[in-house]
Amino acid sequence: MNIRSNPETTRAAVTTGALPSSKKIYATPASAPDLRVPLREIILSEGAGEPNLPVYDTSGPYTDPTVVIDVNKGLPRPRTEWVKQRGGVEQYQGRDIKPEDNGNVGAAHAAKAFTAHHQPLRGLDSPPPRGEGSGVGGATPAAFARGADHPPMITQYEFARRGIITKEMIYVAERENLGRKQQLERAEAALADGESFGAAVPAFITPEFVRDEIARGRAIIPANINHGELEPMIIGRNFLTKINANIGNSAVTSSVEEEVDKMVWAIRWGADTVMDLSTGRNIHTTREWILRNSPVPIGTVPIYQALEKCEGDPVKLTWELYKDTLIEQAEQGVDYFTIHAGVRLQYIHLTASRVTGIVSRGGSIMAKWCLAHHKESFLYTHFDEICDLMRKYDVSFSLGDGLRPGSIADANDRAQFAELETLGELTKIAWAKGCQVMIEGPGHVPMHKIKINMDKQLKECGEAPFYTLGPLTTDIAPGYDHITSGIGAAMIGWFGCAMLCYVTPKEHLGLPDRNDVKTGVITYKIAAHAADLAKGHPAAQLRDDALSRARFEFRWQDQFNLGLDPDTAQAFHDETLPKDAHKVAHFCSMCGPKFCSMKITQDVRDYAAGLGDNEKAALYPVGHAGMTISGTIEDGMAQMSAKFKEMGSSVYLDAEKVKESNKALS
Amino acid sequence: MNIRSNPETTRAAVTTGALPSSKKIYATPASAPDLRVPLREIILSEGAGEPNLPVYDTSGPYTDPTVVIDVNKGLPRPRTEWVKQRGGVEQYQGRDIKPEDNGNVGAAHAAKAFTAHHQPLRGLDSPPPRGEGSGVGGATPAAFARGADHPPMITQYEFARRGIITKEMIYVAERENLGRKQQLERAEAALADGESFGAAVPAFITPEFVRDEIARGRAIIPANINHGELEPMIIGRNFLTKINANIGNSAVTSSVEEEVDKMVWAIRWGADTVMDLSTGRNIHTTREWILRNSPVPIGTVPIYQALEKCEGDPVKLTWELYKDTLIEQAEQGVDYFTIHAGVRLQYIHLTASRVTGIVSRGGSIMAKWCLAHHKESFLYTHFDEICDLMRKYDVSFSLGDGLRPGSIADANDRAQFAELETLGELTKIAWAKGCQVMIEGPGHVPMHKIKINMDKQLKECGEAPFYTLGPLTTDIAPGYDHITSGIGAAMIGWFGCAMLCYVTPKEHLGLPDRNDVKTGVITYKIAAHAADLAKGHPAAQLRDDALSRARFEFRWQDQFNLGLDPDTAQAFHDETLPKDAHKVAHFCSMCGPKFCSMKITQDVRDYAAGLGDNEKAALYPVGHAGMTISGTIEDGMAQMSAKFKEMGSSVYLDAEKVKESNKALS
Repeated sequence: MNIRSNPETTRAAVTTGALPSSKKIYATPASAPDLRVPLREIILSEGAGEPNLPVYDTSGPYTDPTVVIDVNKGLPRPRTEWVKQRGGVEQYQGRDIKPEDNGNVGAAHAAKAFTAHHQPLRGLDSPPPRGEGSGVGGATPAAFARGADHPPMITQYEFARRGIITKEMIYVAERENLGRKQQLERAEAALADGESFGAAVPAFITPEFVRDEIARGRAIIPANINHGELEPMIIGRNFLTKINANIGNSAVTSSVEEEVDKMVWAIRWGADTVMDLSTGRNIHTTREWILRNSPVPIGTVPIYQALEKCEGDPVKLTWELYKDTLIEQAEQGVDYFTIHAGVRLQYIHLTASRVTGIVSRGGSIMAKWCLAHHKESFLYTHFDEICDLMRKYDVSFSLGDGLRPGSIADANDRAQFAELETLGELTKIAWAKGCQVMIEGPGHVPMHKIKINMDKQLKECGEAPFYTLGPLTTDIAPGYDHITSGIGAAMIGWFGCAMLCYVTPKEHLGLPDRNDVKTGVITYKIAAHAADLAKGHPAAQLRDDALSRARFEFRWQDQFNLGLDPDTAQAFHDETLPKDAHKVAHFCSMCGPKFCSMKITQDVRDYAAGLGDNEKAALYPVGHAGMTISGTIEDGMAQMSAKFKEMGSSVYLDAEKVKESNKALS
Repeated sequence: MNIRSNPETTRAAVTTGALPSSKKIYATPASAPDLRVPLREIILSEGAGEPNLPVYDTSGPYTDPTVVIDVNKGLPRPRTEWVKQRGGVEQYQGRDIKPEDNGNVGAAHAAKAFTAHHQPLRGLDSPPPRGEGSGVGGATPAAFARGADHPPMITQYEFARRGIITKEMIYVAERENLGRKQQLERAEAALADGESFGAAVPAFITPEFVRDEIARGRAIIPANINHGELEPMIIGRNFLTKINANIGNSAVTSSVEEEVDKMVWAIRWGADTVMDLSTGRNIHTTREWILRNSPVPIGTVPIYQALEKCEGDPVKLTWELYKDTLIEQAEQGVDYFTIHAGVRLQYIHLTASRVTGIVSRGGSIMAKWCLAHHKESFLYTHFDEICDLMRKYDVSFSLGDGLRPGSIADANDRAQFAELETLGELTKIAWAKGCQVMIEGPGHVPMHKIKINMDKQLKECGEAPFYTLGPLTTDIAPGYDHITSGIGAAMIGWFGCAMLCYVTPKEHLGLPDRNDVKTGVITYKIAAHAADLAKGHPAAQLRDDALSRARFEFRWQDQFNLGLDPDTAQAFHDETLPKDAHKVAHFCSMCGPKFCSMKITQDVRDYAAGLGDNEKAALYPVGHAGMTISGTIEDGMAQMSAKFKEMGSSVYLDAEKVKESNKALS
């Protein structure tokens, strides 16, 4: 590596340690006992009377107190062995790092190069000699033998198409299920109660289901063979709705260490993938630091770096320069590439009358290139070659929506949908080439035009996973676009979008800092979870119910800990009621100690428990409102009233009970 | 008044002054030239090349620099004259303020009584003598004469039913239209483009349309005849979607002056109505301060104060005590009362198996009362009397949903819908009694169950306006419930909900402070506006478009000022690019100065402008994707390329142009 190191510019400060009252646990799939699939278990208070709650965990080893984190060394790379075991790959020297990879940064401003160097892997062009690479996870020898008739299988799509279940597939099946194995009956009920608009979410996820979804092109596991640090995850509408967080320095501001810290911070709060959108100097080094420390898939937009390599002038871009950039990033281990191959010359003039023209950076770079040379986009004309290259590393396509609308006024216009139709055409080419594909979507779309986007994407792109930015449902709230877009994200997630790209409060205004990243991630976790609930996802409501029970029973700490952001919940509570005693108090600041609606509900339960079935039926025959009370029933009521009074009907706070409660928890 | 004054506990600090780059203007309706209907005009920068944008303005005189604000004196009361002019009312001594009205607060903790005292008005039981009250705004003498056959008309509903247009109706018609008069063609297009689910939003709003909507019960103008400070507004699904902000001290925390300040703060950012949910001491005095300083309708839940009057014990509540509280608050000028008359004894046991029982405070108070006495709710049995009382002051009903779900698990259950059916029955009674009515709705509802709520409410309640709290679309994010609920609020607003009750980040955790109030209001302005856009509201998109043009043209200050919260937008921008010069810079921090997608779009426009129609058609015949490029077209392309290069194709920032831009703006 010819990047000068500057030790002072990289610190190793990232946030580690468990979330409040949480424990990292690892599940072991029956079909691959060597795998350790992470979960976070939220530990409830002693008095909860229900089991701890396992939740999906994106945070990687950073929240495992038994792992020593050293950002300078990077994470362990267990997945490299899985890849090598199944064969069909070779380790090779790799491309030399060139000064332009880091924007020709001078020694004074160069970021410290990452310490370790790993020789990259790539797929072989011809089958390996017999005897090698016989360790394909879950594959029968016969199935593998079938593979030997073709070039070696490399991508998850290729394995899936040939009926082979990889370790990655086993891993994500285990990861998606969470508490579902023990709750199959409930899972069926949840599915029946939801509205999934034609999705096919199963009650329980098997590795075979994962394989089948990938083989159909309906899901992807973005997993570059060079990203050994990866904890595999799956993106598809029959799985949990995922979210992506964008980070990345820009020509104007931000540094390498800030970006690594943001990545760790984003996954701590639930980002399923992270896109590094860095521009400017140190772009290669920044990405290396991020990848070597990232347990989640990393996506990039290679055209950004390619543009840096020709001094920011889109006119100077060439296929050769772009291809070299793809190789550079594929060798590093980038898991998915945004490729704006749908921005065709013939569509560009369709954007001329828009209120906000072309707002995608990638889209406008390609538009500029096409116009200046008056040629079809080289991404479109070289698409076959791009597929061949990405297949060798199993880099997934994220087909970019370079013509997405940048304002409510431009939503769902001809330019946008023309591009989407081309993305559908390219999806089929990429599949034929053995690649995994997802499709990027808008943008700025008013609520009543969101479902049209989802339906058209499913139709045009053969159900390949959709991955949208929001969409923002209004343009009038700069500073709050996490919210304008969170609304649209929840809706499109419900309609079938597989991954939601977050928007932070700084959208349109500046680069997100650490707080903005957290706000964006939590907002999108809300959107994704609301979508899962509405679809009837079998395990989603378990967490809502656990939290609601905690809320109802005044288990304040459990309420905080079961939430997406325990720290903020507790801080807000402390602002009004800072005393520790209040954490077990049977009231909240809205009603105060004298009167509490939740206390009264307990009285209702005691009352209902005292009613016989006939009495209930007489009181209110379910299904018939507006019944008048007859004399006979009133007699029964008088008896009930006496019974209820016997049980005690005070709503005052009982100081003795609070003391007992204190004791029980201390 | 027998409340001791304590001058030190009340300060007069509220936020006054215009919003950034905004000017208060007043429109004068042709049919009532004495009315001054407020608007806020957002002043665009000189280079904008488009007119300033008028927007709806809830902020009252506080943002008019020509008005001297003295919170101790209260606002002017012009509306009192309108009421007196149309007659049918009498001024009378009013009820004495009793110590229990303020929770028997001692001298040490008593808030300062409000300085001025206004004798209340109430409706007369018999027609006024001929010659009096002939000044009904817009009414023909004949129409008014018809009124003389009945008891005098007092409520907006009564006037509307008898074909009489009040000044309040003229006022709100003017207020709702904004820029629509000049944009009728555009208004029609917007309506055609939207999806309003059966709403009947007109292109232009006339006073007669307002009257008709009120007469049908589809809209209300909450306007107590004793709230002379009011700037009338309308709630109904064929008008702009409104939002409510809750304020109010509690037994645990907060003070009178904080609540007045929160009210002024909430309307500054766009709250259309404010509910005072105070409990504990000084409850009467707090409300008086709020009402005398409020230009927006004030709502309350009278049962809260009634409960304070019997030491917080629901069992001790009586109809007489409740009725006395209604009179107390009606005389003060409260514009709408939440009345939980749908919590019937026979429904209570339906909540026993819920995860979170009864979470409405009003609902649980009444449930407790019903159970303890084993009697039907006195709100239900005395509903006729409540109507007669509220009619005399034109206090609008907000029929409370005391059995609303408090968790995702309890959404849309039998208890909730049984109550809603009863609210429908009560709506018809209230209408027959001449009252204005809206209906409160949930609560916690997953996305796929929201529309069912809206549809059932319209059906059961004869299209009376719906007024929902959120709904929250998931329970798992305490600390972020403005967002979990903003998603549901936007959706139900789109489906037809007329007013959205905000939820702040402190929901479930503590009392909202000033910052929380602002966050809640802005979030709900987003939800309401997103709903208006999706419905196809004729004027809604004007603001989105103006902001998007500003964004596209790098008019940073215009972008900030056109947003819902210019202060935050500018502060966020300053964090990354603090220099003044950047406010006119033709780039943003996401892309930096070297490359900018918006610049490229300008190139596209220049290019498209250079294309002939035939050339465009040859490039991309609209409606047909995937066309291949023929040789002939390629020749044309080469020509275009040359033409484009002539026009200059640089994407670099032109330092000279920035300087010119600086000059132009300074």
